[in-house]
Amino acid sequence: MRIAVWMPERPDAWVEGLQRELPGADIAVWAAGAPPADHAVVWAPPQQFIDEQPTLRGLFNIGAGVDALLQLRVPPTTHIVRLDDAGMSVQMAEYVCHALVRHVRELDVYEADAREGKWSYRKPRLRRDFPVGVMGLGVLGERVAKAVGQFDFPVNGWSRSPRQVGGVQCFSGAKGFDEFLAASRVLVCLLPLTPDTRGVMNRETLLKLNGGAPGGYVINVARGAHLVNEDLLALLEEGPLAGATLDVFETEPLPPDHPFWRHPKITVTPHASARTLREESIVQIAGKIRAVEAGAAFADLPGLVDPQRGY
Amino acid sequence: MRIAVWMPERPDAWVEGLQRELPGADIAVWAAGAPPADHAVVWAPPQQFIDEQPTLRGLFNIGAGVDALLQLRVPPTTHIVRLDDAGMSVQMAEYVCHALVRHVRELDVYEADAREGKWSYRKPRLRRDFPVGVMGLGVLGERVAKAVGQFDFPVNGWSRSPRQVGGVQCFSGAKGFDEFLAASRVLVCLLPLTPDTRGVMNRETLLKLNGGAPGGYVINVARGAHLVNEDLLALLEEGPLAGATLDVFETEPLPPDHPFWRHPKITVTPHASARTLREESIVQIAGKIRAVEAGAAFADLPGLVDPQRGY
Repeated sequence: MRIAVWMPERPDAWVEGLQRELPGADIAVWAAGAPPADHAVVWAPPQQFIDEQPTLRGLFNIGAGVDALLQLRVPPTTHIVRLDDAGMSVQMAEYVCHALVRHVRELDVYEADAREGKWSYRKPRLRRDFPVGVMGLGVLGERVAKAVGQFDFPVNGWSRSPRQVGGVQCFSGAKGFDEFLAASRVLVCLLPLTPDTRGVMNRETLLKLNGGAPGGYVINVARGAHLVNEDLLALLEEGPLAGATLDVFETEPLPPDHPFWRHPKITVTPHASARTLREESIVQIAGKIRAVEAGAAFADLPGLVDPQRGY
Repeated sequence: MRIAVWMPERPDAWVEGLQRELPGADIAVWAAGAPPADHAVVWAPPQQFIDEQPTLRGLFNIGAGVDALLQLRVPPTTHIVRLDDAGMSVQMAEYVCHALVRHVRELDVYEADAREGKWSYRKPRLRRDFPVGVMGLGVLGERVAKAVGQFDFPVNGWSRSPRQVGGVQCFSGAKGFDEFLAASRVLVCLLPLTPDTRGVMNRETLLKLNGGAPGGYVINVARGAHLVNEDLLALLEEGPLAGATLDVFETEPLPPDHPFWRHPKITVTPHASARTLREESIVQIAGKIRAVEAGAAFADLPGLVDPQRGY
C-alpha cells in the first residue's frame, strides 16, 4: 500500500508519524512524477496532485473543512474523508466560550480600564439576556453548544436537517432560520462552507438577531466567506451590532491594511480557534486507512464527505 | 418581625425586594438608634450595627466570603449565614475558564499581535501539560473544577477536609498540600480567608507548582490576602512563574500606583469575577428567613457559618 502526503507545513513529521502507525506501508511526501498512491493525506493540494493519482481510493483531509478540496476535480472513485474531531471540538468549545464570556462579562472593558489603572464598575448583566445561537450542529457545533450551556446561557442551534441536542433549542432548514436568528443574540458560525452557506451572515440576516433589537454579537470560527465583511462593518458603524470575534477570513493571512485589525469592536485571531493536533490526527487517519484496507466500507467511516452536499 | 438592612450600595433596592418577598415584615435600612431587629441583611456593617442589635437571630451576609464579618464582635446567639451560590458559582466558573483558556491558548498574545496588525503563529500547546489545581472545594470551587474538566484539562482539587468530586483528583489537609501543588500548573484560589489560609500563596508554595518546573500560573478569585504580593512579583521577575490573573486585592480598590496594574504578566480585574445578583440573593435570603421563622433550625440552612472554622 502506498500513501502520498501533501501539506504546506511539516509533511516529514506526518510521514514519520503515519509510518509508525502503519509500519508496512510505503509512505512519502508527494512530488510530481511519483508513482500513484492508494491513499493520500493532504491539506490544500494542487490539482496536479489529484490528476497524477487516478487510482486514489481515500483522500484524507487533515482539517474539518473540505471547502478548499472540493474546488478541485476529484475522480468519483476517490473518497474524500475529513478529520472527525481529533481534538478540535474541545478547542472550538473553549475558544467560543472565551469569546462569549469576554464579551458578555465585559472582561475586555475591565482589562482596557486596568491598563489605565482604572478600578471600574459595570452593572452585572443577566445571562438570560444573551441567548447564544450556534449555526451548524456537527461534531464541533454540538460540543460548542453544550459547553455554552454549561455556563447557563440559553442556547439555540440551527442545522440544515433537523437535529436533537440535549439542552439546546434546535431549529432547522430555511423555515426555521429566521426564528433561530430572532431567538439568538450571540451568533456562532460553525457551518461548513458550501454554495448555500456562503455569505450567510449578511445585513439582512444579522439585522434579525436579538429579535431585531440592537446588541447582536458575531463569533465566526468557520470560514471567512460565511460573513459579508462590508455588512458587518456597516452594522457595527450604524449601531445594531455590538461587536465580533473573528478567527477566519476570506483572505488569510488577513491583509495588513484590512479594517478588521484595529477595529475597536472586532477581536481578530489568526485562524487559531482549533488547530489540527498532529498526533491525534495521525492516529485517527491511520485507523481509518487500516479499516478500509481490512475491508471496511468508506461509507462507514466517520467524516466521509458527500461532494454534492459539500461536507 | 423586624429586618435591618445595611450595605454600601443600593440598600433601598434590597429593602424593596425583601419587602416584596416578605410582605408582613417590617424592613428598613438601618440607622443608629433604630429599634433592634430580628434579622439583618448586610455587607460589611460597622461594629455599632451589631452592638445595637443584641437580639439579632440571623445575620445574613450578601456575599460568599464572611472574613470581614468575622472581624466584628458578634454575640454567640446570632447566627451568621453566608450566600450559598445564588448565581455566583456559574460566574466564577466562567471567569476562571476565561482566564485559563486565555493563558493556555495564548489568546492574549494573539490579541496583542492583532493590535499591531500581525498575523502570528504559535505552536499548539497540549492541555495535559496544563493541569489545573483548584484550592477550596465548596459550592464555588466544585463548580469551577467541573467546568475546567469540561475542557479536558486534568483537574486537581484541594480542601481542608477530604472531599470527592467527580472527575477531579482530590487532595486534602496539610499532608496532601505539597502533592497537590506539585501536580498542578495553574493554581486557582477559591478558599475562604481564615488565619490558616492567609498568605497561602507565597514563595515557598508557589515554587512547588508544576513539579517545581517553571510555568506556574495563578488565578486568584478569593481574597487578596491569600496571596503574598511581593512573592508573586519576585517570582514573576525571577522566572519560575509565567503570570497571574487577579480579581481580588488586599486593598480594594487597588491603589492607582500599585505595580500589579501595568505588569505585563498580570491581568487585573476589579473584584468582578462573581457579583452578587440582587434578585437571586433576595429570593434566597428571604427563603431562609421564612424557614427559620417557621421553626427551621439555623443548623439546617445552607451557608450557616461556623465562626471557629471561619467559613
